[in-house]
Amino acid sequence: MQQLSASLKAEGKTIGFVPTMGYLHDGHLSLIKTAHAGAQVVVVSIYVNPAQFGPSEDLSNYPRDIERDQLLCRENGVDIIFYPDDGQMYPDAYATYVDVEGLTQHLCGATRPGHFRGVTTIVNKLFNIVQPDCAVFGQKDGQQALVIKKMVKDLHIPVQIIIAPTIREKNGLALSSRNKYLTPKQRKEASVLYKALQLGEHLILDKGELKASVIIDEISKLFQNKPDFTIDYITIVDTLKVQPIEHLSGEIMLALAIYVGKARLIDNIIIQVPRDQIPEIH
Amino acid sequence: MQQLSASLKAEGKTIGFVPTMGYLHDGHLSLIKTAHAGAQVVVVSIYVNPAQFGPSEDLSNYPRDIERDQLLCRENGVDIIFYPDDGQMYPDAYATYVDVEGLTQHLCGATRPGHFRGVTTIVNKLFNIVQPDCAVFGQKDGQQALVIKKMVKDLHIPVQIIIAPTIREKNGLALSSRNKYLTPKQRKEASVLYKALQLGEHLILDKGELKASVIIDEISKLFQNKPDFTIDYITIVDTLKVQPIEHLSGEIMLALAIYVGKARLIDNIIIQVPRDQIPEIH
Repeated sequence: MQQLSASLKAEGKTIGFVPTMGYLHDGHLSLIKTAHAGAQVVVVSIYVNPAQFGPSEDLSNYPRDIERDQLLCRENGVDIIFYPDDGQMYPDAYATYVDVEGLTQHLCGATRPGHFRGVTTIVNKLFNIVQPDCAVFGQKDGQQALVIKKMVKDLHIPVQIIIAPTIREKNGLALSSRNKYLTPKQRKEASVLYKALQLGEHLILDKGELKASVIIDEISKLFQNKPDFTIDYITIVDTLKVQPIEHLSGEIMLALAIYVGKARLIDNIIIQVPRDQIPEIH
Repeated sequence: MQQLSASLKAEGKTIGFVPTMGYLHDGHLSLIKTAHAGAQVVVVSIYVNPAQFGPSEDLSNYPRDIERDQLLCRENGVDIIFYPDDGQMYPDAYATYVDVEGLTQHLCGATRPGHFRGVTTIVNKLFNIVQPDCAVFGQKDGQQALVIKKMVKDLHIPVQIIIAPTIREKNGLALSSRNKYLTPKQRKEASVLYKALQLGEHLILDKGELKASVIIDEISKLFQNKPDFTIDYITIVDTLKVQPIEHLSGEIMLALAIYVGKARLIDNIIIQVPRDQIPEIH
């Protein structure tokens, strides 16, 4: 892959890169489309990265279907699939890790210790192998997007990072390979995740509510009396340091992680809090 | 610098890189000569990297002389000097670090906590900025050489690492910017560091001594009754995992760090332990 990229670059070709864990869905296909718009050659990596899974997480059950993925890549004009194995990516005595501090402390970083260290390490490795001009990630993994942009800036990695919007089912459920774990009933009910984000947006933009604790309390009520749903977190952070904030201002991310049956689903929206909004007194 | 490197590479030029902390001496000039042999364009960075100094170390006193360095670079055919400042390398809210685990645990990693994290982070950053085809480091910083080769391998960084031999004064003292801290008397007496390494080599290769503890005891005697000399460490490690070993075999590094007055000096030699050597019984 590294030699192939080097020879493509020597020919003056630009490379767009979409790193994935496979089991591709319309969300991935939208990332591929974005990559095509930004570069002449599109590389998709398919690798379920063990370093980003905790010991009690779903690494062994994570859905895989390489033949279907290959077909989807072909149909969507992908030029190169990079499909390494664990022995190539983490050989014996592997020892090097990349950490982004602070931004990985809360949200998924709090409930999945080591997850982002695994993500930033594999993305750094994949960038060095694929040598892309641009790389496309989904807004669905909102904290990941902020962390990768920070890593690229801090380490001066010469790759343009493009964040593509979340693709949703008609009922609002964000597309995710982990939706496969849902029963048909859960899949229908899981639309409440997006409804919760919309409620937050409504409270902030239409009602002028700027206290995070009030917004989170209101949102949490949507998950009450739902035995299949367990809140992992519902949090509002700034998008620069990714720290929880109480008094909202500037650009914020409302993010949640909810267990729905066996599946842990995440979703988020970015909101620009209007400057001239006058906070209500409670 | 990044744009300049990109345009040089677009012209098909190869880039050789010598990262330094400045205050150049003949050791650096030998690295520059090696870079010229391996690439068409030679870039030298001069940056006293605060991330690799501990809070009680010599960051503020570390010798600096940019005008003399510029002159030496010009005289030695350096094409580009990259001379960033702290605000460019570690701006506010800087958060990303690269760690090589295990190999950084002993030797200087034990007595200078965080030192190698600083080294691997800055080298990663400089590689992303300078985009070299090859980079030259000195064997004098023996653990650093092993750690950087490991980082490059693990992260698939497309840079060839060249380790150039240690340059010594006539009395054997390894050249180092920190030799500036020595009085003329200390500078003369500091030849004992290299004599200690030679004694170790003699014991292993000529006497067949393969017990590290015996070798280290013998070497330590050279520093007894020398009030200006304090041993930080004298250790023998394997060159793969950089772990202390007692029974010598394969490729080993005999390394030492000695305080001489105010200066902390390091030196090392790599020894291939002969396969057919029969250990003595003690």
